[in-house]
Amino acid sequence: MRRDMVIWLTGLSSAGKSTLGENILDRLRAAGHKAELLDGDIFRGHLSRDLGFTKKDRDENVRRIGFVAELLAKNGIVVIVSAISPFRATRDEVRSLIPGFVEVYVNAPIEVCERRDVKGLYRKARAGQLREFSGVDSPYEAPLRPEIECRTDLETVEESVQKVLQYILRYMQSR
Amino acid sequence: MRRDMVIWLTGLSSAGKSTLGENILDRLRAAGHKAELLDGDIFRGHLSRDLGFTKKDRDENVRRIGFVAELLAKNGIVVIVSAISPFRATRDEVRSLIPGFVEVYVNAPIEVCERRDVKGLYRKARAGQLREFSGVDSPYEAPLRPEIECRTDLETVEESVQKVLQYILRYMQSR
Repeated sequence: MRRDMVIWLTGLSSAGKSTLGENILDRLRAAGHKAELLDGDIFRGHLSRDLGFTKKDRDENVRRIGFVAELLAKNGIVVIVSAISPFRATRDEVRSLIPGFVEVYVNAPIEVCERRDVKGLYRKARAGQLREFSGVDSPYEAPLRPEIECRTDLETVEESVQKVLQYILRYMQSR
Repeated sequence: MRRDMVIWLTGLSSAGKSTLGENILDRLRAAGHKAELLDGDIFRGHLSRDLGFTKKDRDENVRRIGFVAELLAKNGIVVIVSAISPFRATRDEVRSLIPGFVEVYVNAPIEVCERRDVKGLYRKARAGQLREFSGVDSPYEAPLRPEIECRTDLETVEESVQKVLQYILRYMQSR
């Protein structure tokens, strides 16, 4: 039995993807599941360090994450991806390649994300020190029919985590 | 308990890496182990399709394979890598990053490899249609102290497979 499952967290910078991803990972592992988190930023430090932030490079980064996610997932590991992955067509391309792809829209209005500005990137982008920043001078195409939506400006982290965990558990039990 | 294990098959083109890798993979899976084969050529069709065959690109390809291998291995999957990986320093770099790295020198004299020429690449390289081909106009640096050496010109496939499998089983039992 294939048990592929890739939980793909997409959303703006500072929307809460990493926080959510790390919490889900901890919970899954604590419950005895094999799980792995693929973080877009960490990928950029390794596998995608040759890539920049043009649409072409962003798409390639997403494809590479998708390739690795699928490799892990087909070996029975629940994969959580946390990556802005701003383009709808590219996410859909990855979806078409991965059985058990679950799109989670980590959604907070850009004003909220910008106020959080965890890494100080919005400030840099607004000051023109950073180009092609998703939501500022590069588009972020929100999912149209995500399997799950977490409104991180309205829900607590725990509420968002539970929403995703419940989905995962139902999915596992349904097979 | 971490059970990392990466069986890294290095050797010239047509030395027998893929054959050996596929056989080891089948045996491990048949015995109920989780195992995955990362093939250099297949990687080049996906994760490394931007890369060519310069030393820099070859090294980057090997690093990417190493990164993915480690991700799988730390999740309890026995990883078999089949890739020319011609440069000693780069293999040693990957070794330093991967607990349970096992270097297998898939060794046949270049004359034998060239006679086999499974993919017709030596012919192309000799005709100058293919540049920077390992063993022809790009170096292949043989391992100095591989954990295992398979002389595929002197051993049957089954003998080579058994050599590697015995090593894997001993390694698993030693922990």
